[in-house]
Amino acid sequence: MSNEVLSYGMVGGGIGSFIGDVHRKAAAFDGKAKLVAGCFSRDFENTRQTGANLGLDPDRLYRTYAEMAETEGARADGIDFVSIVTPNNTHYPIAKAFLENNINVVCDKPLTFTPAEATELVDLAQAKGLLFCVTYTYSGYPMVKQAREMVRQGCIGEVRTVVAEYPQGWLATPVEKSGTNRQAAWRTDPNQSGRSNCVGDIGSHIENTVAYITGLKIKSLCANLDIFGEGRSLDDNAGILVRYDTGATGIYWASQVAIGHDNGLKVRIFGTKGSIEWEQENPNYLRVALVDQPVLIYSRGGGYLYPAAAELCRIPAGHPEGYYEAFANIYTAFCRALLKKKAGLELTEQDLDFPDAVAGLAGVKFINKCVDSSAAGSVWVDLD
Amino acid sequence: MSNEVLSYGMVGGGIGSFIGDVHRKAAAFDGKAKLVAGCFSRDFENTRQTGANLGLDPDRLYRTYAEMAETEGARADGIDFVSIVTPNNTHYPIAKAFLENNINVVCDKPLTFTPAEATELVDLAQAKGLLFCVTYTYSGYPMVKQAREMVRQGCIGEVRTVVAEYPQGWLATPVEKSGTNRQAAWRTDPNQSGRSNCVGDIGSHIENTVAYITGLKIKSLCANLDIFGEGRSLDDNAGILVRYDTGATGIYWASQVAIGHDNGLKVRIFGTKGSIEWEQENPNYLRVALVDQPVLIYSRGGGYLYPAAAELCRIPAGHPEGYYEAFANIYTAFCRALLKKKAGLELTEQDLDFPDAVAGLAGVKFINKCVDSSAAGSVWVDLD
Amino acid sequence: MSNEVLSYGMVGGGIGSFIGDVHRKAAAFDGKAKLVAGCFSRDFENTRQTGANLGLDPDRLYRTYAEMAETEGARADGIDFVSIVTPNNTHYPIAKAFLENNINVVCDKPLTFTPAEATELVDLAQAKGLLFCVTYTYSGYPMVKQAREMVRQGCIGEVRTVVAEYPQGWLATPVEKSGTNRQAAWRTDPNQSGRSNCVGDIGSHIENTVAYITGLKIKSLCANLDIFGEGRSLDDNAGILVRYDTGATGIYWASQVAIGHDNGLKVRIFGTKGSIEWEQENPNYLRVALVDQPVLIYSRGGGYLYPAAAELCRIPAGHPEGYYEAFANIYTAFCRALLKKKAGLELTEQDLDFPDAVAGLAGVKFINKCVDSSAAGSVWVDLD
Amino acid sequence: MSNEVLSYGMVGGGIGSFIGDVHRKAAAFDGKAKLVAGCFSRDFENTRQTGANLGLDPDRLYRTYAEMAETEGARADGIDFVSIVTPNNTHYPIAKAFLENNINVVCDKPLTFTPAEATELVDLAQAKGLLFCVTYTYSGYPMVKQAREMVRQGCIGEVRTVVAEYPQGWLATPVEKSGTNRQAAWRTDPNQSGRSNCVGDIGSHIENTVAYITGLKIKSLCANLDIFGEGRSLDDNAGILVRYDTGATGIYWASQVAIGHDNGLKVRIFGTKGSIEWEQENPNYLRVALVDQPVLIYSRGGGYLYPAAAELCRIPAGHPEGYYEAFANIYTAFCRALLKKKAGLELTEQDLDFPDAVAGLAGVKFINKCVDSSAAGSVWVDLD
Repeated sequence: MSNEVLSYGMVGGGIGSFIGDVHRKAAAFDGKAKLVAGCFSRDFENTRQTGANLGLDPDRLYRTYAEMAETEGARADGIDFVSIVTPNNTHYPIAKAFLENNINVVCDKPLTFTPAEATELVDLAQAKGLLFCVTYTYSGYPMVKQAREMVRQGCIGEVRTVVAEYPQGWLATPVEKSGTNRQAAWRTDPNQSGRSNCVGDIGSHIENTVAYITGLKIKSLCANLDIFGEGRSLDDNAGILVRYDTGATGIYWASQVAIGHDNGLKVRIFGTKGSIEWEQENPNYLRVALVDQPVLIYSRGGGYLYPAAAELCRIPAGHPEGYYEAFANIYTAFCRALLKKKAGLELTEQDLDFPDAVAGLAGVKFINKCVDSSAAGSVWVDLD
Repeated sequence: MSNEVLSYGMVGGGIGSFIGDVHRKAAAFDGKAKLVAGCFSRDFENTRQTGANLGLDPDRLYRTYAEMAETEGARADGIDFVSIVTPNNTHYPIAKAFLENNINVVCDKPLTFTPAEATELVDLAQAKGLLFCVTYTYSGYPMVKQAREMVRQGCIGEVRTVVAEYPQGWLATPVEKSGTNRQAAWRTDPNQSGRSNCVGDIGSHIENTVAYITGLKIKSLCANLDIFGEGRSLDDNAGILVRYDTGATGIYWASQVAIGHDNGLKVRIFGTKGSIEWEQENPNYLRVALVDQPVLIYSRGGGYLYPAAAELCRIPAGHPEGYYEAFANIYTAFCRALLKKKAGLELTEQDLDFPDAVAGLAGVKFINKCVDSSAAGSVWVDLD
Repeated sequence: MSNEVLSYGMVGGGIGSFIGDVHRKAAAFDGKAKLVAGCFSRDFENTRQTGANLGLDPDRLYRTYAEMAETEGARADGIDFVSIVTPNNTHYPIAKAFLENNINVVCDKPLTFTPAEATELVDLAQAKGLLFCVTYTYSGYPMVKQAREMVRQGCIGEVRTVVAEYPQGWLATPVEKSGTNRQAAWRTDPNQSGRSNCVGDIGSHIENTVAYITGLKIKSLCANLDIFGEGRSLDDNAGILVRYDTGATGIYWASQVAIGHDNGLKVRIFGTKGSIEWEQENPNYLRVALVDQPVLIYSRGGGYLYPAAAELCRIPAGHPEGYYEAFANIYTAFCRALLKKKAGLELTEQDLDFPDAVAGLAGVKFINKCVDSSAAGSVWVDLD
Repeated sequence: MSNEVLSYGMVGGGIGSFIGDVHRKAAAFDGKAKLVAGCFSRDFENTRQTGANLGLDPDRLYRTYAEMAETEGARADGIDFVSIVTPNNTHYPIAKAFLENNINVVCDKPLTFTPAEATELVDLAQAKGLLFCVTYTYSGYPMVKQAREMVRQGCIGEVRTVVAEYPQGWLATPVEKSGTNRQAAWRTDPNQSGRSNCVGDIGSHIENTVAYITGLKIKSLCANLDIFGEGRSLDDNAGILVRYDTGATGIYWASQVAIGHDNGLKVRIFGTKGSIEWEQENPNYLRVALVDQPVLIYSRGGGYLYPAAAELCRIPAGHPEGYYEAFANIYTAFCRALLKKKAGLELTEQDLDFPDAVAGLAGVKFINKCVDSSAAGSVWVDLD
C-alpha cells in the first residue's frame, strides 16, 4: 500500500449539487486523493461555505475557474488534478483552462458539446503530456471489467450482436416544471445539456460501456429520438440501430420515460461461442452462457474471476459493492496512474485502463450522430 | 359446462412432427374438440400409422389434403374444422382448399408467404362466413390477456413506446447441417420458410403479441436483418425500429443466435401513467409499474385480475400453467365461438377474441416489410 | 408410441370439485387412459350430470364407491384403475374397497389419516399384486427428476443439510368462514382433514419431494405447529427440524398464512460438493452450485439433462411446462407401468418410479409425528 | 451539513486485517470522523507501519490497547471514540479499558464471549454516560430501516411468524487448514471465536436484524447446531426454532457450508395484514405483500419511503448502495449522536437508533443459548 496522497481541486459541486459529493466520496474512498482547493459555484458565497464545510484552506477557494487554474498551476504545491463536475455546457472551457495550466483533469461526461471541442481537449492533453479521465462510472464495476476480460480472452468467441438498454422513468412526467427538480430542469434545457438530453445523459453510457467491454467501434447508426414529455425540446427516449466495424450489429435503447425503471443499464453481448449479460442495478453478478451449457452466474469476488476484475473487489462475494465503489475504482485507477507518472515511471496500457478523453470524444461523436440521424428522419449516418 | 364436442381433422402432424402433438393436446385439453380425421403426412404410410396410434377410423385418413377437404366437406358428419400444422409454404393452398369446402380453419403461423395470399384467405373466410384462427400461441396466456385489458382500461395511460424481444439461441451453431435437426433444416430453408427465418418464425410473434396487447398498428418500420450462421441464406437475427399510427414508437429484437436464451419473448409497454412487462419463460406473472409507486407483481390467478384474464386460469395462483395451457386457451376460445355459431347465436367481439386471419395477414405484411426494409439498406418502409 | 389405452374410473371429482378435473386432464394428457366410469359425488344427481358432461355411459355411473368397486371389479371390461380424489378422510375405505376388488389405485395425498390405515393399504396392494400410486404432484416435474438423478450420481457429494419450504398465503384471513371457499372449509375441518391441516396438505409435499430427490429417511423430528387463524383448531404454519438416518439435518417450513406467497414450494439440498435448488413456481429451472464455481442455471429441455429428466420434457427449453404436465407425468408413469404389467412384463425399478403407497405411508407417518411432537411441546420424536 | 469532525482511534485493523479497512472507510464515508490514533496490532512494527500508511502522528501509535486507553483518555484532545475490530475474544477487555477511561466505543460483534461480560459493558457505559455502538452492519441498510418503520406503523399488522436465513458456502471445505485463509482459521478456533462459529458469526446477524426490524424479543429457542467440516470443533450450520414473547414464532437457518451462497442474509416477516422480505445480496429492494394484492417491490430511493429510510439514501433509486454504505450509516448515526451529546443536547430515541451494547448483549445471550440448547440435545431453552 503506497501512502502517497494526491491533492486535487474541484470545479462545481457546491451546496445544492448532487454529483459533487459523489466525486468527493469516490476520490477519498481509497485514500489516494485529498481535496485541497475549489471553485464550487459561480456564487462565491456558496464556494466559501462549501469549502468551510469541507475544512479547506480559505486561500484555496476561488471566485472563477480561470483564477483557480492559473493560481493552482503556478503554486509549487498546486493541485495534482482537477475534478470538473459542472453542467455539460461548461466542461470544455474549464477543462481547457486547467490543461493549459498543466493540471491533469477528471471530467464528468459527456465531455463537451461538439466533437471539435472534444478533439481539441484530446490533442491538448496529449501535447501537454497530461492525464485526462472522463468519469464513465460503469466501467468501474468489477463485473464490467470481468466482462471486458472475457471478451478479450475469446470466451464468447467473436461478437455478433449487442443488445443494450438504459431505461429510467424519472422524466415520465414534466418534473422539470416543478421548480424543485434542479436536475430535471438543466437536463431538459438545451443550453445546459446540449443537443440531446436522453442520449447525451444515458445513451452515452450505453455507448461507452459497450465499447469498453467489447472494444467494438461503431461504423454507422440509425437513431430515432422521441420527445414524449409535453413542451420539451430535447429527446427523452431513443431507439438506435448500430453497425460496428467488424460486421457485428447492435440495438440500443435509452429512455427517461420508462416508468418502472430506476437506472436500468443492461448490456448483453452475444458471440459465436457464448454470451455475457450485466445489469447495473444488480451489479455484483454476471450472467454468462456458453453454447448448449447451463447458464452461469458469476459472482463479484468469486475466486474464478480474472485478476483485473478480482483486484477491484474490496470485500468478499456476497457483500454488495455499488455505485460509489465503482466510481471510486475509476478515481483510484486514475490516481495510481498519476502517482506512477509523477514518480517518472512509464505507464502501461493497464495503468491507463480508465475512461479517457478519447473515450470522451467517442461519446460526443455518438451523441451528435444520433441527433443528426434522427433529425434527418432516422437515416443511417457514418460515425466518421 | 357445455358437453357438446366439436370434431376436427388435421393436416400435417404425422410421426416425426413436433407441433402436431402440441395442437392435438391443446385441442383436447378442455374437451371441446375431438380429432376424427387426418392427412398427417405426404407419406400415406405415416398417416395410416399416426391415425392408428390415435385410434382414428381408417376411412377418415386421407392421401392428400385436397381429398380430405372435399370428402369431409361433403360428409353429413364432416369435421367442424381443420388444423393445419404443415410448414409455412403449404399453409395457403391447404387453408384455401378447406375454406372452399366450407370447413372452418385453424392454421399455424405465419399464415402465408405473401400478403396477397393472406388477403385472399381473409376474404374467402369472410365470404363463406367461416371462422379462421391463426395460432399465435402467446395471446393465449392469461397474463397477456390481463395486459391487454389493462391497456384497454387505460391503466397505463396512452402508450408511448414499446420494447419487445424474442431471443433464442438454438441456431447459434449450424445445427441445420447436422442432419438430425429437422426443425432447423426447414426453418433455414427459404423454400419452406419463405423470405425470412427469424422474423418469420419469432419476430412475427413479437408483432402479434404487441398488437394484441396494445391494439397499436404499425405505420412504418426500419429493419436490419442479420445472417450470422455460415452458409445461411435467411436471417437469424433482427433489429427493428417501429412507428405506430398513434405516434408511439417501438423497438423489436428477434434472434436465434442469442446463446443463453431459450425462448425469451418479452414485451414491455410504456404509457403516460405506467408500464406493463410480460415474459414468456415466466408467464404466470406480470410486472406493472405506475408513476412514482412501487413496482407491482401480478400473479396469474390473483383475485385482482380482470375477468377476461381470470377465466383463462384453471388452477390457483402459484400453480404454473404454461405453453400447453396457453395453446389450449386459443383452441378453446375458437371452439366456443364455433359452437355458438353452430347454435345460430350471434358472435360478440369477445367471442371472437382469438387471433384470426386478419391478424395472420398483419403478420405476413410485417415479415415482408422487414425483409423489404433490410434488403434496401435498412430504410424506413410504410406498412401500407 | 404404444396405442393401447387404459380405462379408468373416478371416485369424487363431481361438479363443484376442483381437483377432479385436474386428475382427468392429467390422465388424458398423454393419451394413456380413458375415463369410463365414475362415482363423482355422494349426490347421485351430481354424478349423473358429471358423467353426462364427460360423455360417459350411464350404466357405469354409480351411487356408491362400494357398488362401483364391486361392479367394475366383476366386469370383464372393468376399469384398469380407479382415481380417488375425495377429501382425506375417505381415502382409506375407498382405496381398500377397490384393492379388494382387484383394481389398481391412484389416490390423492395424504393417503390416509393413520399410519395403520396406510400400512394396511400398502400390505393389501402388495398381497394382491396391484399397483398403487399416490399423487405427490411435484415429483412429476422434470427438474425434480433431474435433481434426483444428480444426487444419485453423486454430483453434489453426500448430502449434509436440506432446507425446504412451502409457503402459501391463502389462509392468512379466515376465508373458511366466508361460506364460499369450499376448499378452505374442508382443509380447516379436522373431520375431513385429519389431525393436521398445514402439515397434512403441504408439509407432506415437502417431506415427499425431499425424500424423492435425496432418498434420505427421516430418523427424528422436532415440530412446532402454529394456529394463527382465529377460531381454527388445526395448524396453519409449521417449523420442523429434521434429522435423517445418515446424520444429515434439515429444516422444513410450511405455511398457509405467508402473505405474498402463492404456492412457493422450494427445496434446497446441500452436499459436500455442491448444492441443488428447485422452486415450484418457476419449475423449469434448477439452480446448481459446485464448490468455488459460478452458479449454474439448468433449463428444462437443456441437452445436458439426464435421460430420466429429458424424457419427461415434451417441448423445447423455454416453453414452460407446469403443474398439469407434472401431474400428467405421474399418471403417464403409472399407466406405462400398468400397461407393462398387463402385458405380463416384469417391472423394473425405473418402471416403478412414481410415488407409491409406501411413499404415501411415509407421508402419513410424517404428518402424525409432527402433530405428536408439537403436542408434546415441540420435542424430538423418532419416526419409527 | 455540520462541519464538526470527531476524532477516533482504532484497536486492531493492522496490515493483513480485512475488517479494519472496512471500518475506516465507513467512518470516513460521510466525513464525520477522522482517525488519529491506533493500536493496530500486537506487533508494534505492524502498528507503526499501518499508522504511517494512514498518515497518523507517530506519537499516537500505541504498543498496547491499555496504554492507548489511558493516554488518549488523559489527553485534552483525546479521541472521541475508539473502534474495536479485533477477534471476538478480546472485545471485552478492550472495550472495558476504554470505557473506564471515559472513551465512547464502537465495537465489532459479537460483543463478548459471555452474557456476564456483555452485561458488565452495558452497565459500565450506562454508569459512565458513554455511547456504545456494536456494528451489526445490516441494520444500516436503508431498506432494513424501511422494513422496521413499516412494522412499527402497522403496515403488515401484528407479526405472526418470521423466517430468516443466512447461508454462506465459504467453509464447505476445510479451508482453515490451508494456511492461507486467516479468517477461516480464527473463525473455527474456539479460543478466538468462543463457543460458536456459525451462530456467533452470522446467526447473530439474523438475531439482530430480526430484532431490529420487528422489535420482537425471543422468549425461548430450540437449536440444532451441526459440525459438518471434518476435524472442526465449532458449528458450521444451524437450524433454530424460535418463540417470541408475543406468541409469534420464527425459524432461523445459518450456514457456512451452503455451497452456492455467498452472503445470503434474508429476512421475511409475516404479519396479519402483510409481509416484508429483504435480502442482503440485493439490498436496495424490499418485497412487500398485502393480503390479496399484487406483490410490491420497493426501491431504495423511491419517493414513497418513510423519512427514516429515505434520509439514509445518498443517491437516487437504481444506483446501488451496498455494504460500505450500510456500514457508514451506522458510523454516521453514532457520530451524529456523539456530536449532539458533545454539544450538550438531549438525545432522542431516534438519535440513538443504532445498534448499541444492549443489542450486543442480546446477541451474546442468543449465541450462548443456541449452544446450550444444542448441547442438551436441541431442547427448548428460555432466553432469560
